[in-house]
Amino acid sequence: MTRVRMDLFVSLDGYTSTAGRSSENPMGEDWNRLTAAYSATRTFHEQVVGDSTGTTGIDNTYAAAFFQGVGAEIMGAAMFGLHSFPDDPDWKGWWGNQPPFGTPVYVLTHAAPRPSIPMAGETTFHFRSTSVEDVLIEAREAAGGLDVRVGGGIGTARDFLRANLVDDLHLMITPIILGRGTRLWDDLPGLDRTHKVTTEVAESGAIHVTFTR
Amino acid sequence: MTRVRMDLFVSLDGYTSTAGRSSENPMGEDWNRLTAAYSATRTFHEQVVGDSTGTTGIDNTYAAAFFQGVGAEIMGAAMFGLHSFPDDPDWKGWWGNQPPFGTPVYVLTHAAPRPSIPMAGETTFHFRSTSVEDVLIEAREAAGGLDVRVGGGIGTARDFLRANLVDDLHLMITPIILGRGTRLWDDLPGLDRTHKVTTEVAESGAIHVTFTR
Repeated sequence: MTRVRMDLFVSLDGYTSTAGRSSENPMGEDWNRLTAAYSATRTFHEQVVGDSTGTTGIDNTYAAAFFQGVGAEIMGAAMFGLHSFPDDPDWKGWWGNQPPFGTPVYVLTHAAPRPSIPMAGETTFHFRSTSVEDVLIEAREAAGGLDVRVGGGIGTARDFLRANLVDDLHLMITPIILGRGTRLWDDLPGLDRTHKVTTEVAESGAIHVTFTR
Repeated sequence: MTRVRMDLFVSLDGYTSTAGRSSENPMGEDWNRLTAAYSATRTFHEQVVGDSTGTTGIDNTYAAAFFQGVGAEIMGAAMFGLHSFPDDPDWKGWWGNQPPFGTPVYVLTHAAPRPSIPMAGETTFHFRSTSVEDVLIEAREAAGGLDVRVGGGIGTARDFLRANLVDDLHLMITPIILGRGTRLWDDLPGLDRTHKVTTEVAESGAIHVTFTR
């Protein structure tokens, strides 16, 4: 049965942040600190860096699961980069010619409609201006029984959480205090009352929290 | 050498809360959820409940350390109960006739001066209207080489953290989403840059984070 899954990186003070974003540093300076333990995993090295070094502990177990069993991905316009390159019809996202998704990816946007973009490796970007509920219906169908992953960014993630659409939420909490960015938790319902919670600490010190229903 | 220590209970969304406070439930309803794993420890049972049941795992290791090696305690007026019983000159705090401190306890208050209150078990409550820096000087002297513990509440704790006076901070993070109360992290400096951070998960699921310098 299709489950709706989400993985989020947050700081100990509950922020996700892309402060200091630039074309050289598209996710921002804080993002690198927030995702350092993930970027150090063997999975990240194999999927993105292109070598087979990296950590093989608890962080890597979670990283390896990110795209496993996923049949469709949903993300916000900012995560695709539409806000950074609004006028470039040839912009194809931050993920290179062969993005790691390997599935249809639905990009939520209020901008003018764009044609879908097929990429190498079975990723196709589709652009939709619908509600989170409606894009989820389409993504579920496309997933063909596999899971739907909501990739972010934080605004899109919070929309899905507020609409109570997420079955499995995984937080990777890095024990740093950012003090700026977007707060994950504001006005969110008590996920701990609707979902079962687990906690685990990785060798890196990162805290993994899962909410499952 | 005297160290300034602090133990705080926070929710996953960064709140400490005494919402729903009453004379029957002086710390509030959320507080019971926030401290459930601590209240389940053998240390708490021995020190407060008066029996020798309770958990003996990682939560208990931290709980046992709360008052070990402490020579003086500092707390805010609300934590002593001065805000709840402002007009009762005989009010002696929430901790019964023999409080668990066993040391001088400095209560920070802007209310009219009160005489000190000696209690059974070597606890004496003193009331001070000074700055956090000045009360710390007095508490350090009283501690006689042992540590000074800042007991709370959250307002007092944040005053000491903002003034960069805390050497050892221990957070017991319960994986619940309170969504109300007082936020620990607002406007606090990046403790992770001045202190070394450790993370650990207890059998209960509670997350223990320490900041040490």
